[in-house]
Amino acid sequence: MNRMKRLCCLAIALGASVVISSSFALADESLEKMSDDPDQWVMPLGGYHAIRHSKLDQINTNNVSKLKVAWTMSTGTLRGQEGQPLVIGKMMYFESSYPNYVYAINLDDIGRIVWKFAPQQDKFAPSVACCDVVNRGLAYADGKILITTLDTHVYALDAKTGQVVWNAQNGDPEQGQTMTMAPLVIHDKVIAGISGGEYGVRGHLSAYDLKTGKLVWRAYSVGPDDEILFNPEKTIDGATQAPVGTNSSLKTWEGDQWKLGGGTTWGWYSYDPQLNLVYYGTGNPGTWNPTQRPGDNKWSTTIIARNPDTGVAAWGYQMTPHDAWDYDGINESILTDSRIDGSIVPTLTHFDRNGFAYLLDRRNGKLLRAHKFDPSVNWAKEIDLKTGRPILDPAKMTQADVNVKNICPAAMGAKNHQPASYDPRTKLFYVATNHICMDYQAFSVKYKGGFPYVGALLNMFPAEHGDIRGRLFAFDSVTGETKWAINDMFQDYSGPLTTDGGVLFYGTLDGWFRAVDEMTGKILYQFHAPSGIIGNPVSYVHDGKQYVAVLTGVGGWAAIGLAEGLTKGSEGLGAVGLTRSLGDFTNLGGTLVVFSLE
Amino acid sequence: MNRMKRLCCLAIALGASVVISSSFALADESLEKMSDDPDQWVMPLGGYHAIRHSKLDQINTNNVSKLKVAWTMSTGTLRGQEGQPLVIGKMMYFESSYPNYVYAINLDDIGRIVWKFAPQQDKFAPSVACCDVVNRGLAYADGKILITTLDTHVYALDAKTGQVVWNAQNGDPEQGQTMTMAPLVIHDKVIAGISGGEYGVRGHLSAYDLKTGKLVWRAYSVGPDDEILFNPEKTIDGATQAPVGTNSSLKTWEGDQWKLGGGTTWGWYSYDPQLNLVYYGTGNPGTWNPTQRPGDNKWSTTIIARNPDTGVAAWGYQMTPHDAWDYDGINESILTDSRIDGSIVPTLTHFDRNGFAYLLDRRNGKLLRAHKFDPSVNWAKEIDLKTGRPILDPAKMTQADVNVKNICPAAMGAKNHQPASYDPRTKLFYVATNHICMDYQAFSVKYKGGFPYVGALLNMFPAEHGDIRGRLFAFDSVTGETKWAINDMFQDYSGPLTTDGGVLFYGTLDGWFRAVDEMTGKILYQFHAPSGIIGNPVSYVHDGKQYVAVLTGVGGWAAIGLAEGLTKGSEGLGAVGLTRSLGDFTNLGGTLVVFSLE
Repeated sequence: MNRMKRLCCLAIALGASVVISSSFALADESLEKMSDDPDQWVMPLGGYHAIRHSKLDQINTNNVSKLKVAWTMSTGTLRGQEGQPLVIGKMMYFESSYPNYVYAINLDDIGRIVWKFAPQQDKFAPSVACCDVVNRGLAYADGKILITTLDTHVYALDAKTGQVVWNAQNGDPEQGQTMTMAPLVIHDKVIAGISGGEYGVRGHLSAYDLKTGKLVWRAYSVGPDDEILFNPEKTIDGATQAPVGTNSSLKTWEGDQWKLGGGTTWGWYSYDPQLNLVYYGTGNPGTWNPTQRPGDNKWSTTIIARNPDTGVAAWGYQMTPHDAWDYDGINESILTDSRIDGSIVPTLTHFDRNGFAYLLDRRNGKLLRAHKFDPSVNWAKEIDLKTGRPILDPAKMTQADVNVKNICPAAMGAKNHQPASYDPRTKLFYVATNHICMDYQAFSVKYKGGFPYVGALLNMFPAEHGDIRGRLFAFDSVTGETKWAINDMFQDYSGPLTTDGGVLFYGTLDGWFRAVDEMTGKILYQFHAPSGIIGNPVSYVHDGKQYVAVLTGVGGWAAIGLAEGLTKGSEGLGAVGLTRSLGDFTNLGGTLVVFSLE
Repeated sequence: MNRMKRLCCLAIALGASVVISSSFALADESLEKMSDDPDQWVMPLGGYHAIRHSKLDQINTNNVSKLKVAWTMSTGTLRGQEGQPLVIGKMMYFESSYPNYVYAINLDDIGRIVWKFAPQQDKFAPSVACCDVVNRGLAYADGKILITTLDTHVYALDAKTGQVVWNAQNGDPEQGQTMTMAPLVIHDKVIAGISGGEYGVRGHLSAYDLKTGKLVWRAYSVGPDDEILFNPEKTIDGATQAPVGTNSSLKTWEGDQWKLGGGTTWGWYSYDPQLNLVYYGTGNPGTWNPTQRPGDNKWSTTIIARNPDTGVAAWGYQMTPHDAWDYDGINESILTDSRIDGSIVPTLTHFDRNGFAYLLDRRNGKLLRAHKFDPSVNWAKEIDLKTGRPILDPAKMTQADVNVKNICPAAMGAKNHQPASYDPRTKLFYVATNHICMDYQAFSVKYKGGFPYVGALLNMFPAEHGDIRGRLFAFDSVTGETKWAINDMFQDYSGPLTTDGGVLFYGTLDGWFRAVDEMTGKILYQFHAPSGIIGNPVSYVHDGKQYVAVLTGVGGWAAIGLAEGLTKGSEGLGAVGLTRSLGDFTNLGGTLVVFSLE
């Protein structure tokens, strides 16, 4: 292509882009603009780039010790609260754990619930939710509140009244499908995934029309090219930087196993408006018994970048080929710029469940760095930057009927859903993590729709001697350097928030809400919340005053024993024994807690 | 009897008393002494006299505006919390709503639950609890925590370990019996009653041996003399000041109706150590349809004074003979001295559900005063001080198959369980009340064990135009004067606490925790709690610092629609419609909230 032709094509592309933009200007551009306003918190992770950083600085390292509880509100539910409120103007919205109550609060009048939405749900759904009946929050766009419910519905509610604008069914709980993720609105589409990786569910990402709720596209994680929306010639394999070719998923599976192939999409979504790409990760391949599914099992445990308008994938980078440890790749992708070998590159940083912090060029999925962020990681020695593949420790490879001991991290991951934060001022990532290992015994399992399709017995335990199961730390994803770390007794399962005040906020599984000096890791303030914290603090301004809000309420996989009322041994998914003592420290119960200075 | 004989008898009585005392010195005398220490809160109502007043004054009218939340803890349950914590030394204990979790917290280490007791319960019990699955707290004595469970068990737990010392069955949920009250320990006995007045349960008060859990005595509220432990010649009828005579209960019932005669004992108990009398009230007669039970229906709706060692009644005063409005008499009896016609008299003040504030001589049950404490009361014009009986308004007398309109107060009472406070400095009572009326249509009902035995359809509504259903006020029980009053949108269902700091603490049904100036009724501070408040604040000192603690968590009869998830009309016991809008203001969820100054 000569230069003139290129310019011509560019012009056409730009022109087309403008045309498309105009039709969804209301929802999308205003949303992005709103997310630049630090007084509001308009998207689940704060903004499209998912950095979870607030530019507010009224509360800072000098005064945070004087923080106090401004007001509180029960969620009306007992189980784990993994989400966060949104603040749109003077309104706050949040969603509880199942049965997924949604509340609208006018911040001028916190004593009154403007509206409450209590969805009628399929009562079967909670029985197939693998890891507590959590929810990770709602989205806002164009005067609508978008929510997902455990029984796989996507609702658009009128933000003013709570009335249902539309309601789409995205899955089938009878087949083990559930929804726990926060949706993300891009342009005129509501992006949402599906949970159920422990039930042989074949994951997909779907886009619903923001106005009508009509399904616009659906992209499976595994399967034929036309179902995964991979263009054999154009979609790039991040590891090889070559087009993926025909049947890139199918040829990595034996027989029809891909039909139960997992790759669910229950994590967080981020978006680059310039590249017009949405980023998300896919979960473990089905089953957990790797012997039943030879091959790389693409595109499970993969970060995928798609065009949000068409669903077509620009690239995919698989982190854990032939995952044999339940290392879902669903953790958030944080979009920042990084200085790589002297150049500024638009990158994506992803703290994976497998314990490596992946730094990718987000234009093409090229692997730039992959540092262990948990010192205990032993399933792989390193990630080969040339091949993009892990260099395994054969002793930690699991297989049917062998009890492989002391694999780090455990299936729950060195990090799970808890979204990390990035402070543009320090250029560091602040990551709440698990510090845990496991024994893993795979076994053959037969599929039956709606029944667990796991095929492994696990036992999880702390990664080190001493009662430490969680670490919060400041991390440089380019150099792999850990600046400081706080050790906690239980998994740090609440996503940190950083602020221009230099204060980081997070919560512990045993119920302490903390303010930490971003520079030193020193705890400057802590408050004993009603329950353990697995939600993610946000910050906003109301009437000129900065607030920090967090949903408290222990549960999730990290506290599944407590959530399910299990008291003995290592029932469930192997995580019960790990936190057996958690009930000595905290209690179920969902509460929104809002903090401010005097 | 001449003077010498009198002295002799007195000496014998005193001597006997000393002998008895020595055998229960440990539990009883130390408990009374402990209750004099304002740093602790050792009995449900603070002390035997049930005044709910704290002598602490660190928090006072000058500084209470700077109050803040010191720490919080979920109860682990969603339903109504009608109780309060105890503070014994450095330990705090509290009990949740059903399933009646009991927690022990070391105040030196609030992040850790020292022990938790989760009783195994009859799953049938919640279905026969008329008015939410509440609990009103636990008792302490002699190194033991005494609790009642909804399924009618009384447990003694080792206060250090939570291990069960003994467990007594006090009733049978299959017959509609439940327990919601806080027990009271007197001498070596644990006093506890029974709930279930809407199931034809015949109420009783029982005494269990503190050491062994063995039933020592049981006194029914209605029935033969030997079952109600009334001595025909010695037990005084408060109204007439004469001995009650033979069959004082039986002769006020027709046929065997007394066997379903109600008079349950689910309220608060108080005790006068000098007179050695325990005071409590009995509930409504069964059924709510008065036409089915002609007569006074003694000793329902009665304050009874008994010897706690033998159970024998010293006197009984019936407030609402032939109750036709569900005016249970179970509200607390507050023991103070009053200046009556120039003399100081040991009195008992009782704010009854029927809307009158009864002032009795607590030595003999003689009626001294009876003032309306709610301006709307209309079922009776007054209480005749000579006869001790109400002078009824015949237009408000209910009967089968007639819908009697606009009776005040409603069945929920002008005051219900929410215990009042008395400040010895101001000599005033501080009373949180309901301000509500009803239509009442009785109908014939047939008894079947374990099924509702109500026989009335009710509709409740606010007593005045405007959205007012509750009043908090300061009241002189001798003169009947109301010094000030606060009107609230919903029933004030949380018992106030007064303090030597001149500050009153209480909570509203829609979730505001408030500090009020005792002199003026001015609100000096308020905090938006996680949920509506029907629990009763207490105060204590830890490490030299005053704290105020309250169990928040909406529910109870006042919020039965919200608690049971009823959204339509006037289901349940007629109270649903009254608070239909409560869900616009608050949410279910149990949380202990503890306040302090900086």
